[in-house]
Amino acid sequence: MLDDIYFMNLALNEARLAQEAGEIPIGCVIVCNEIVIAKAHNLTQTLNDVTAHAEMQAFSAAAEYLGAKYLKDCTLYVNVEPCPMCAAASYWTQIGKIVYGTKDTKHAHIDRTILLHPKTVWVGGVLEEKSAKIMQDFFQKKR
Amino acid sequence: MLDDIYFMNLALNEARLAQEAGEIPIGCVIVCNEIVIAKAHNLTQTLNDVTAHAEMQAFSAAAEYLGAKYLKDCTLYVNVEPCPMCAAASYWTQIGKIVYGTKDTKHAHIDRTILLHPKTVWVGGVLEEKSAKIMQDFFQKKR
Repeated sequence: MLDDIYFMNLALNEARLAQEAGEIPIGCVIVCNEIVIAKAHNLTQTLNDVTAHAEMQAFSAAAEYLGAKYLKDCTLYVNVEPCPMCAAASYWTQIGKIVYGTKDTKHAHIDRTILLHPKTVWVGGVLEEKSAKIMQDFFQKKR
Repeated sequence: MLDDIYFMNLALNEARLAQEAGEIPIGCVIVCNEIVIAKAHNLTQTLNDVTAHAEMQAFSAAAEYLGAKYLKDCTLYVNVEPCPMCAAASYWTQIGKIVYGTKDTKHAHIDRTILLHPKTVWVGGVLEEKSAKIMQDFFQKKR
């Protein structure tokens, strides 16, 4: 079934690719009419670019795929709540919906929803445990 | 003299390149030890990418130039106050200072300073009139 669980598992697959490359394991997919039009994972170390978050790459790739500026009919699935940069980037894309797995505890003091486009639906807690575990495992190994 | 006025004029030159390409005229430079290490202008139309703001491109280019992840000893000069996405991106770069020309009136309700790295110095109003005029001229011609 092509539901939130299905697409979040695809985002988690992307997160695993990041993990294998030694990157913080955050991955995402962008879906439009039940079709995955972009997938990406965090590449900040690989590209030596602290802005190379999964979501930023996926926004650019999705617009390229659609040949359209806006992602109004699309949903972003990402295992960790988007950071303020990515949330504010989503404002520009006017993306229809953002579904994330686990909360971003690092920037918890910044309410992401004030940064979103007013029409963007914001949903958290999909595959929350799995989404959190991959992050916890990564940082435990780092220590 | 290599002062704020000098570097803001370079940012305005970049803004003019955007304007000539039919883009919203926002341009920037990143300076490190009085040397310009990156310059960029808004390319959202040209690249069909709503996240292709001048600052985002300059952050990536500056890190590439330095071969370093962080821009702690650098200053960003940009003719318009960075939007929430670019301000939040600057958090990740840990840039030392941001100097802008005129206020961003479109997202005035979002306090950019809560998005910055705690060590980033935030200064506005350098060549304010010139910085505002290029924007006003652009939007007047659009109407």
